[in-house]
Amino acid sequence: MGIKKAGVLGATGSVGQRFILLLAEHPDFEIHALGASSRSAGKAYEQAVTWKQTDLLPEVAKKITVSECKPEGAFAECDIVFSGLDADYAGEIEKDFVNAGLAVVSNAKNYRRSPDVPLVVPIVNPEHLSVIEKKISDAKTAGEKKPGFIICISNCSTAGLVAPLKPLVDAYGPIDLLTTTTLQAISGAGFSPGVSGIDVLDNIVPYISGEEEKMEWETKKILGNFNKEGSEFVPLSDDEMKVSAQCNRVAVSDGHTECISLRFANRPAPSVEQVKQTLRDYVCEATKLGCHSSPKQTIHVLEEADRPQPRLDRNRDAGYGVSVGRIREDPVLDFKMVVLSHNTIIGAAGSGILIAEILKAKNII
Amino acid sequence: MGIKKAGVLGATGSVGQRFILLLAEHPDFEIHALGASSRSAGKAYEQAVTWKQTDLLPEVAKKITVSECKPEGAFAECDIVFSGLDADYAGEIEKDFVNAGLAVVSNAKNYRRSPDVPLVVPIVNPEHLSVIEKKISDAKTAGEKKPGFIICISNCSTAGLVAPLKPLVDAYGPIDLLTTTTLQAISGAGFSPGVSGIDVLDNIVPYISGEEEKMEWETKKILGNFNKEGSEFVPLSDDEMKVSAQCNRVAVSDGHTECISLRFANRPAPSVEQVKQTLRDYVCEATKLGCHSSPKQTIHVLEEADRPQPRLDRNRDAGYGVSVGRIREDPVLDFKMVVLSHNTIIGAAGSGILIAEILKAKNII
Amino acid sequence: MGIKKAGVLGATGSVGQRFILLLAEHPDFEIHALGASSRSAGKAYEQAVTWKQTDLLPEVAKKITVSECKPEGAFAECDIVFSGLDADYAGEIEKDFVNAGLAVVSNAKNYRRSPDVPLVVPIVNPEHLSVIEKKISDAKTAGEKKPGFIICISNCSTAGLVAPLKPLVDAYGPIDLLTTTTLQAISGAGFSPGVSGIDVLDNIVPYISGEEEKMEWETKKILGNFNKEGSEFVPLSDDEMKVSAQCNRVAVSDGHTECISLRFANRPAPSVEQVKQTLRDYVCEATKLGCHSSPKQTIHVLEEADRPQPRLDRNRDAGYGVSVGRIREDPVLDFKMVVLSHNTIIGAAGSGILIAEILKAKNII
Amino acid sequence: MGIKKAGVLGATGSVGQRFILLLAEHPDFEIHALGASSRSAGKAYEQAVTWKQTDLLPEVAKKITVSECKPEGAFAECDIVFSGLDADYAGEIEKDFVNAGLAVVSNAKNYRRSPDVPLVVPIVNPEHLSVIEKKISDAKTAGEKKPGFIICISNCSTAGLVAPLKPLVDAYGPIDLLTTTTLQAISGAGFSPGVSGIDVLDNIVPYISGEEEKMEWETKKILGNFNKEGSEFVPLSDDEMKVSAQCNRVAVSDGHTECISLRFANRPAPSVEQVKQTLRDYVCEATKLGCHSSPKQTIHVLEEADRPQPRLDRNRDAGYGVSVGRIREDPVLDFKMVVLSHNTIIGAAGSGILIAEILKAKNII
Repeated sequence: MGIKKAGVLGATGSVGQRFILLLAEHPDFEIHALGASSRSAGKAYEQAVTWKQTDLLPEVAKKITVSECKPEGAFAECDIVFSGLDADYAGEIEKDFVNAGLAVVSNAKNYRRSPDVPLVVPIVNPEHLSVIEKKISDAKTAGEKKPGFIICISNCSTAGLVAPLKPLVDAYGPIDLLTTTTLQAISGAGFSPGVSGIDVLDNIVPYISGEEEKMEWETKKILGNFNKEGSEFVPLSDDEMKVSAQCNRVAVSDGHTECISLRFANRPAPSVEQVKQTLRDYVCEATKLGCHSSPKQTIHVLEEADRPQPRLDRNRDAGYGVSVGRIREDPVLDFKMVVLSHNTIIGAAGSGILIAEILKAKNII
Repeated sequence: MGIKKAGVLGATGSVGQRFILLLAEHPDFEIHALGASSRSAGKAYEQAVTWKQTDLLPEVAKKITVSECKPEGAFAECDIVFSGLDADYAGEIEKDFVNAGLAVVSNAKNYRRSPDVPLVVPIVNPEHLSVIEKKISDAKTAGEKKPGFIICISNCSTAGLVAPLKPLVDAYGPIDLLTTTTLQAISGAGFSPGVSGIDVLDNIVPYISGEEEKMEWETKKILGNFNKEGSEFVPLSDDEMKVSAQCNRVAVSDGHTECISLRFANRPAPSVEQVKQTLRDYVCEATKLGCHSSPKQTIHVLEEADRPQPRLDRNRDAGYGVSVGRIREDPVLDFKMVVLSHNTIIGAAGSGILIAEILKAKNII
Repeated sequence: MGIKKAGVLGATGSVGQRFILLLAEHPDFEIHALGASSRSAGKAYEQAVTWKQTDLLPEVAKKITVSECKPEGAFAECDIVFSGLDADYAGEIEKDFVNAGLAVVSNAKNYRRSPDVPLVVPIVNPEHLSVIEKKISDAKTAGEKKPGFIICISNCSTAGLVAPLKPLVDAYGPIDLLTTTTLQAISGAGFSPGVSGIDVLDNIVPYISGEEEKMEWETKKILGNFNKEGSEFVPLSDDEMKVSAQCNRVAVSDGHTECISLRFANRPAPSVEQVKQTLRDYVCEATKLGCHSSPKQTIHVLEEADRPQPRLDRNRDAGYGVSVGRIREDPVLDFKMVVLSHNTIIGAAGSGILIAEILKAKNII
Repeated sequence: MGIKKAGVLGATGSVGQRFILLLAEHPDFEIHALGASSRSAGKAYEQAVTWKQTDLLPEVAKKITVSECKPEGAFAECDIVFSGLDADYAGEIEKDFVNAGLAVVSNAKNYRRSPDVPLVVPIVNPEHLSVIEKKISDAKTAGEKKPGFIICISNCSTAGLVAPLKPLVDAYGPIDLLTTTTLQAISGAGFSPGVSGIDVLDNIVPYISGEEEKMEWETKKILGNFNKEGSEFVPLSDDEMKVSAQCNRVAVSDGHTECISLRFANRPAPSVEQVKQTLRDYVCEATKLGCHSSPKQTIHVLEEADRPQPRLDRNRDAGYGVSVGRIREDPVLDFKMVVLSHNTIIGAAGSGILIAEILKAKNII
């Protein structure tokens, strides 16, 4: 057990900086390797980074010498590697790390659709990690050394969406129709250059490249099934679930708001009060496992007419809890509601950390 | 014919100020009476008002002495009276004006549901004015003097919503399912106090009191039918059309963005290209009548992936045109698209002016 | 010693809510009385308040029954009473509390100019509390019971301004010319209604009623002197120090930015490096006394060209530290620099709490 | 006379787009050549540009084939060339154009400090164009062909600053001390990427690279003198005028607000009322010449306590007028006031157009 050695790929970027913040005072992990481009490699981290977080650059990270993103040297000794790499680089580098036998938790989109890669929102579907457990146990049985693996963090807007869906599906059966219109924060777009100021000042951009497709597809994998062998994922089919997303960028720093609407396949549908109670009662597995970052309350059901609001509610349970409000009947589908989640915590780096906590709790790392 | 005398009720308020701006250089109307609370009555308008428009207070309005909101004095001589009154006052005052034989176009919500009051978006359903024409002609037949009447402007978010629906229903038959999630500007809420700064800075408020009910109901009246006699309106039933609205307040000054999704009752549904062409081809009646403020292009179909945007597109055709973008198939209903309309022009005062232009063109006033 | 009983006047308002948040987990104080208008009195606090903080309403405050703002009942037992009252009510009520022998720390402006009332920024001039100590000791000598007293928190923008001035004056003698142009956050204006959204969206309001006069005057009291007896304050004269403030309201939630420029009376002026070092070395008395909320680093001297920035730097030392950047020579006066302070912490409620901590550390309460 | 042929360098950029908008319906000019990078050259303008203006791309520009930025082909026939080039390219290209005998009005900073290049704010110092007139007349005398020349548009924040200074200096003699703290809009920074959204959302950036130096220096050239021969400019010395600027980037789309303070060299200083009257009475030369874009009222003196505000006042006289408010005595210098100017009109492209109108009116082109 003890403290696990953690590496961060893409350490100078927006997601990498957040991994470092979350790791800096973490009881389970210590920062052991920081990887960035060859331009940064060799420098002390504090020299290499343009730090743009509201929390100060942690002392513990300042003097670490930045490495190149290769599965050697400091990274070779890591129990877990968090990847905040851009998709342009993640594909190649993460593959190298897995091939070198390393455990990678990635925020990049590259391997999310791979049939044997778990796409995990840690407060929703940690049971998908069983595919990794099986892979490790199969290798052991075969007398091979422990294999490397990759686990993908979902898209930020998907994380908020599926959080309330999971307990509802568990309680009332499949959701066959689902619509979501998002009002997404700008922090998710990073900061070099990120979203242009002129695009979000007195404005809305009703489009985020690739986002709608990601939400529509990822939801079906996260709420989906395994193959018979338990070695691959079988997303829900369009017949089982139709998902429609409309994504907007708005002038909010952190916190994705989603106006969702859903229909259950089974009749009669539950009552509004049943839906609320099911959400209130939901305790995610990470919380049951006692994971350090797991939310006390997984889903906060708000009763005030005008909540959740990003500025007021995004930091519930340090950003690991999801807020759901305005749960009411929908004239078109069954129910509509407003879901708020912290896009850089449960929607990105924070999910990565919580996944690693679960991996440790389950002795996978 | 000639120039019509216009009065404005609630002249010092947000909507009243916009009526005045639009009337000041209007070729069809002259400002003849300005009404406000007894606190303002007797003062020159420039003394009574806290002017908060980006255009300067028109010279022509500055010296007009503000009256009380009574159907006497200057108002008695008006051919048309525009009401920007708060709902708290509009009910009583507007009734008095109608009873005094005056023609009232109101932005208040009080009489929108009255069966014999037209609820008109002038680029959508000016044919609803026939109820007024019938009322006048009936009075004439009966040897009575010309009756007063009231016409209601729709809610701001309803106006944008129904604009593209009308030509689609005309072309492809009824829409039976409709969802809209709005991202609404703050100017619609007036400015004393209006929306609080702290509520829209780095924030979304996912609730606007009464707004969803208004949108769901008004849409069915505007797209609805007449009774046999042509004297009353018969809104669509829930069986004919289900509408679901989710309303959000966002940090935009002017321009309501709506992410809508719809299903036609008839199969097969038209193609995306047909939908676009129908919207492009639509010419509203006001434009055919040559009304001064009518849009050259009623509906602007935008092909860029990230449009319409409020800051860039809200002023098309001086705010009388509606922009529609991202028209595409919807996995849940038939089509989804983004609709942008100027909430204080086509969504409020501007619609009032254009209604009056139609009334004049049809010799109703 | 032990835990002191604290009361909060104006408990449902913006400043009152922040007092409650800061008191809820404070080791030195417990919330004993909450006062609000007669409309709220008698209700449980959670019923009476519209809570609008980003932190949740503390459990410890929820069930407290709100009292009227009278120096009786629960308030009579308080060791310290924090006032977040509006100026309209503060004058009368605070006087009653003092007359009843209570210790009041007030955020209202009413008594700031009273010659015997300390106007205290706790990281700047806690020595002004000696006037209270003298008052108490005089009463004791005279055999009278311990008198009530009031201490005023400075205006929010004054607090940030004087923080760097104090150590500079101590080190290099009087500052005779001082200009400040402020870019002030909206949270200071409260929220009912507070600053209107339309006023700060894509806009600046270059005026805050009464603010410039307050800054110009308060600075001279805070940096000023005592009379011979040590019983009253003698602000600096215009001959000793001229202060010019220009105040702007901007679209920032928390954190006042000030661009200041100053000239020392003595020649030669210190060097830029001396100024920086003096600010870095400054340790406020509250920190020396070990007060719970006192900043580890009173003044943070930032070297990055584009700092301090409100979003990134306002929370240094939980809002009790002040950030100063861009210290450089000024072509007109001696030096210019940018000062950032948290307007609701060191600029309001937080200062009140820290003043009370100092009072306790000095056995004044 | 007649209509002059105009070229635009950097035509796809932010400034270039505004030149095109202003030229499209201009009675004095027609767009004859559009220059951009070799990547764009050869394409129709509507294909080459990512249009991001609130007004639609003018029909007249859509089909123009974009050229490379060389003083040949279409550009060789231009009577006037407007340059919106980035400073990285402007130096070389503009020199080539001048050497080819072309008249260039540039928004780039490269030649602003050249002693023989006029730095012109057209509502302030068009008399500086005499240096060009002399150059042309000298060439004529020498029997040489008409020489090319360049005129520089000032920095956007300088333009607003000097507008009220000029009439005051003319009336009351030199200003020897001047401070300005700016709150600058983001449109000036262009849009690829321009100012990052995360930098201006709930934030201020108290720094704009190079801006303060530009303001401090340009002011002294614009208000400065000529050498004896009238062939070169002699900026004011530090002894004659000290200028101190502090520049901030804020969440405003268009419109720079400046809080300025100034002292006259002569005693006694004028009264506040005299200052106001002088500003009100100022009629710039362009207006006297009847130039198409010249403001009806050069300087708008606002009496409301809380004005000017960018959203409400930036469009006075189509952005060619400057608004000045809060004129009052300053405890440190003589007067303080708030100046608002439209940074992309009088502060950039608009000034270029108005300079060209003056050139035409004076038969320089």
